[in-house]
Amino acid sequence: MKALYDRIMQDGRCLDGGILKVDRFINHQMDPYLMKQVAVEFIRRFADSGANKIVTIEASGIAPAIMLGYLLELPVVFAKKKKPSTMGEFLVTQIRSFTKQREYTLVVSRDYLTSEDKVLFIDDFLAYGNAGLGIVDLCRQAGAEIVGMGFIIEKEFQQGRKLLIDAGIRHIESLAIVESLEGNKIKLKD
Amino acid sequence: MKALYDRIMQDGRCLDGGILKVDRFINHQMDPYLMKQVAVEFIRRFADSGANKIVTIEASGIAPAIMLGYLLELPVVFAKKKKPSTMGEFLVTQIRSFTKQREYTLVVSRDYLTSEDKVLFIDDFLAYGNAGLGIVDLCRQAGAEIVGMGFIIEKEFQQGRKLLIDAGIRHIESLAIVESLEGNKIKLKD
Repeated sequence: MKALYDRIMQDGRCLDGGILKVDRFINHQMDPYLMKQVAVEFIRRFADSGANKIVTIEASGIAPAIMLGYLLELPVVFAKKKKPSTMGEFLVTQIRSFTKQREYTLVVSRDYLTSEDKVLFIDDFLAYGNAGLGIVDLCRQAGAEIVGMGFIIEKEFQQGRKLLIDAGIRHIESLAIVESLEGNKIKLKD
Repeated sequence: MKALYDRIMQDGRCLDGGILKVDRFINHQMDPYLMKQVAVEFIRRFADSGANKIVTIEASGIAPAIMLGYLLELPVVFAKKKKPSTMGEFLVTQIRSFTKQREYTLVVSRDYLTSEDKVLFIDDFLAYGNAGLGIVDLCRQAGAEIVGMGFIIEKEFQQGRKLLIDAGIRHIESLAIVESLEGNKIKLKD
């Protein structure tokens, strides 16, 4: 996806430890027009998915997910990192974030993830794949089917894709694939 | 805004302690089409604001903010509740959440809130007004101007509007105003 590749090369920055900072246009300041383009590209790539619900994780997944949900006319659910006191029955899973070096829980209400759902999961990054695995676990608990997982950026060298394939995800799409950040230089896959 | 009023009466639920639960269509599961309608109504109400940036708070403000930013072709910044390890120079303020009975910090990078900004702040709820006050403080630190604050739902009886007016906010719009939740019944203002 050329607009995204160009933008990453222009505004992305590398930090030590394999971190790609995209807070100018994706996960702190957001470019809504780019988010719309991202959503359109997801539609193209998941044209035959049969999804009836978009699922994401707060907070950075919400913008692309709501754009996609708007264009596809589908409800969007974001998994929360803390259980609100007002949530009734819920599903919960535990995630290890390698980037942030901590564990966190992921919570979704039983009301909004059920065995009726064919889930297209959308997130900003595919890195080590642990957030995706958390969604696999929540969907398994709910009896929901995952029909695909779409990521704006995949850090290929952190090998999350393999984990998700091993967990049974058959359709994974990433709109930009980072081959390496060695020497703090961004190398994107053609 | 009729579509929103109807939806609150249909899908909103009251919990003890003045809580209005709208997690079926706003802040857990989200209805993207309603979010687009909300954004259009904000455009109408802030037609002359001269905003050049939309600011919101993670996570529930992101969906209406990104829709509004998309339609207005403006960048959207969401304030974070934790400082990411990768954030450079930042502004920080402390918020007291009455609903959640705890304090939290609100953080924004200095790169994305500056004295060039004319900020339209968007959030899901206006309750006691403390989140809005936090944004006032961050904008003051940045030298940014706040040209308006727009909320999807205002709980009038929690009197946050007065706090924001006293803090100098001249243009506040709420698309649905809840007069009371007494007896766990939703009473909306005509």
